[in-house]
Amino acid sequence: MHLLSIDDLSDAQITAILDEGERWFAYNRQPRRNDHRLDGLTIVNAFFENSTRTLLSFEIAANRLGAQVVTMQVEHSSIKKGETLEDTARTLNAMRPDALVIRHGTSGAPASVAAIMDCPVVNAGDGIGEHPTQALLDAATVRQHFGRIDGLKIAICGDLKHSRVARSNAKLLERLGARLRFAGPPSLMPNDLGGTGIDQAVDGADVVIMLRVQRERLEEELGDAPGEYLARFGLTEERFSRTSPDAVIMHPGPINRGVEIEGTLADHPTRSLIVRQVEMGVAVRMACLDLLTAERLG
Amino acid sequence: MHLLSIDDLSDAQITAILDEGERWFAYNRQPRRNDHRLDGLTIVNAFFENSTRTLLSFEIAANRLGAQVVTMQVEHSSIKKGETLEDTARTLNAMRPDALVIRHGTSGAPASVAAIMDCPVVNAGDGIGEHPTQALLDAATVRQHFGRIDGLKIAICGDLKHSRVARSNAKLLERLGARLRFAGPPSLMPNDLGGTGIDQAVDGADVVIMLRVQRERLEEELGDAPGEYLARFGLTEERFSRTSPDAVIMHPGPINRGVEIEGTLADHPTRSLIVRQVEMGVAVRMACLDLLTAERLG
Amino acid sequence: MHLLSIDDLSDAQITAILDEGERWFAYNRQPRRNDHRLDGLTIVNAFFENSTRTLLSFEIAANRLGAQVVTMQVEHSSIKKGETLEDTARTLNAMRPDALVIRHGTSGAPASVAAIMDCPVVNAGDGIGEHPTQALLDAATVRQHFGRIDGLKIAICGDLKHSRVARSNAKLLERLGARLRFAGPPSLMPNDLGGTGIDQAVDGADVVIMLRVQRERLEEELGDAPGEYLARFGLTEERFSRTSPDAVIMHPGPINRGVEIEGTLADHPTRSLIVRQVEMGVAVRMACLDLLTAERLG
Repeated sequence: MHLLSIDDLSDAQITAILDEGERWFAYNRQPRRNDHRLDGLTIVNAFFENSTRTLLSFEIAANRLGAQVVTMQVEHSSIKKGETLEDTARTLNAMRPDALVIRHGTSGAPASVAAIMDCPVVNAGDGIGEHPTQALLDAATVRQHFGRIDGLKIAICGDLKHSRVARSNAKLLERLGARLRFAGPPSLMPNDLGGTGIDQAVDGADVVIMLRVQRERLEEELGDAPGEYLARFGLTEERFSRTSPDAVIMHPGPINRGVEIEGTLADHPTRSLIVRQVEMGVAVRMACLDLLTAERLG
Repeated sequence: MHLLSIDDLSDAQITAILDEGERWFAYNRQPRRNDHRLDGLTIVNAFFENSTRTLLSFEIAANRLGAQVVTMQVEHSSIKKGETLEDTARTLNAMRPDALVIRHGTSGAPASVAAIMDCPVVNAGDGIGEHPTQALLDAATVRQHFGRIDGLKIAICGDLKHSRVARSNAKLLERLGARLRFAGPPSLMPNDLGGTGIDQAVDGADVVIMLRVQRERLEEELGDAPGEYLARFGLTEERFSRTSPDAVIMHPGPINRGVEIEGTLADHPTRSLIVRQVEMGVAVRMACLDLLTAERLG
Repeated sequence: MHLLSIDDLSDAQITAILDEGERWFAYNRQPRRNDHRLDGLTIVNAFFENSTRTLLSFEIAANRLGAQVVTMQVEHSSIKKGETLEDTARTLNAMRPDALVIRHGTSGAPASVAAIMDCPVVNAGDGIGEHPTQALLDAATVRQHFGRIDGLKIAICGDLKHSRVARSNAKLLERLGARLRFAGPPSLMPNDLGGTGIDQAVDGADVVIMLRVQRERLEEELGDAPGEYLARFGLTEERFSRTSPDAVIMHPGPINRGVEIEGTLADHPTRSLIVRQVEMGVAVRMACLDLLTAERLG
């Protein structure tokens, strides 16, 4: 079994991951940690695209289950010597890992790799494809906070066109019964999502998920005008006041303060769940690795 | 005891490594892995030259024996601050590792380091010197496939002048009774090996080992003419048809498809052992690390 | 409890670290190592400034206590994406490490991070601030050699203005009763240390600690004149002959042979403690990590 897309998961598996994720969340706050259920397993992180936070999160998740983690650094890889992705996958598979976590700049690369591997493959983000563990940790964070997801109004705002986070979140949150709204700069909206203006999207929302905007795209879009993106498409105090009284703020990080979100909102002591998402990330990835490797351990 | 060159090994040790390598090969395919014979030992990988596959292979091998692995990344190293190799070795030795795996662009560097270290040193490739674990894994792969090495006709083809893989393989396979042939571009042949043309080398061969050609050398040699190296010095379908009916294809990887080898041959389901070599690599390195550290554990 | 500065330690804690450091020093020389007192703990190394030897030393120290180590490589970090240090700290904290080791080019950065973290933070060098574990390993090395520190004459020579090693050493060695002398190029002396010429500083000294001089500063100071720094400010054979008959030479490494120290002195079989310092470094860092995490384990 692979975790390449939210579509790979049954409803029962999604519930199991969210339940286990919450359990590991509590576990990780305890003083001692010595779970050894994946003792002796080899988990390879193949990161073809840099991401400190996601890599650390997966490394710590694997370690906490007792697995041994080996990380392949792409800058040093044979890729640079002209090796094809398929040949790299064959090489990795021959080393008999028990799970492979892959991040790649090209959409679909993890699926190509999974077609070759004999072990479970986890997509840790592929191009503008999917980022299923981010969606799972977001859902777990929302469910932990509200006790439910069904019926919540959730706005996802920003560069939806290039966001694998948005794509996986849209799939998962919809399956879990959330009512979604999408908003972003017109040139950064995909055609298949019915987007509205940000003011309408956040109106009465229970959750606002702001997406990171790439600086390069920002400049293409708006030139160098400081504050322009925030004013037109970002989450300001004024806009946040339109949400539900109990609304919470989420962001996959790293945040651009003063660009897609006002710093005071990111730091809001009760309404911002941004740091909580990171904490849930380790927990949910523990649940995913445990689920995926379970069958290998018999 | 160090493993700097094939010459460091007695016949009995070579046999022991090949036997143990085959045993670990089977072990690595099992669902659970929790050997702890090197529990608590510190193995340092000092890679002064990048090589994802060799580094991963050694890291996984050490992990599977229960050792703790620390990897020194050369780009960050004091070397850049003008420290001598000997001073780096003294520093590494002072950290009391139980084994040091070193890869270095300069021939002889591992021997200089070994002269300083109190622990076993494994040469993971030095300049145009040797690459003993590659030769051992190649021999183990051949022996596993044919049940023997003695008497086999083995062609080693390509840039023999700069190939530490060829140098170690020539030594080891000859000791094990293989009948060797060498072929490559005239300007890339060393003086001490009697080379022939590639057509003669592969004629009736049981094993064809193709070497990777560096793109820089390729261009020096042939300019930018695409397909020229393959046509004149590479392994084509036509050339492979001249080998023994049971002949197999090997390559230390990463391969340049369409340069030193036709892609269809690299992927041949029964005749290509290229992926098998990678798998045997982890197994043979487990055998080597176990052998070398055995005396330290008393 | 954090270890950001020597000032964070009580006299009793300093003594405990030196005692335990000596014990781990002996332990690390034994054939087998399998202490598991930090089994299951996660220690994060966040190195925002490259330092192979310090990173390796902390990684090995943590491993030898059974902790799981995750290293954050700054070149890949979100820092490059414009994330603030505080946001990075919040992210790291959310992953619930049991200790954080941080090295940073800006003085005070570890303190800013520690203000956010729920776990102990160890300063592994911050700008021109402090480097407390280096001072502790230096003190442990001196105490191991002489059996005492109280009353020893210790000269610290070189670029004192930019040296966090000197700053931490000055604090610690003075508290332990050493009589300190400082010497260096006039433009590289801080105002708050009463410096003398190097000839006076080493005269009758029991210990001479030479500091590494950055090549850039060297050129600013002296242009390209080879040997000029050594002649005017370095440790030459002639100068070393002025020290106490039992005097020893120390250096935090990596050394510039022929710049701040003559190579023959660095290699002196009985008088140079430079390699010994590296060995004590792993041992003292084991003591520090053990002390800092002890309260978390209850």
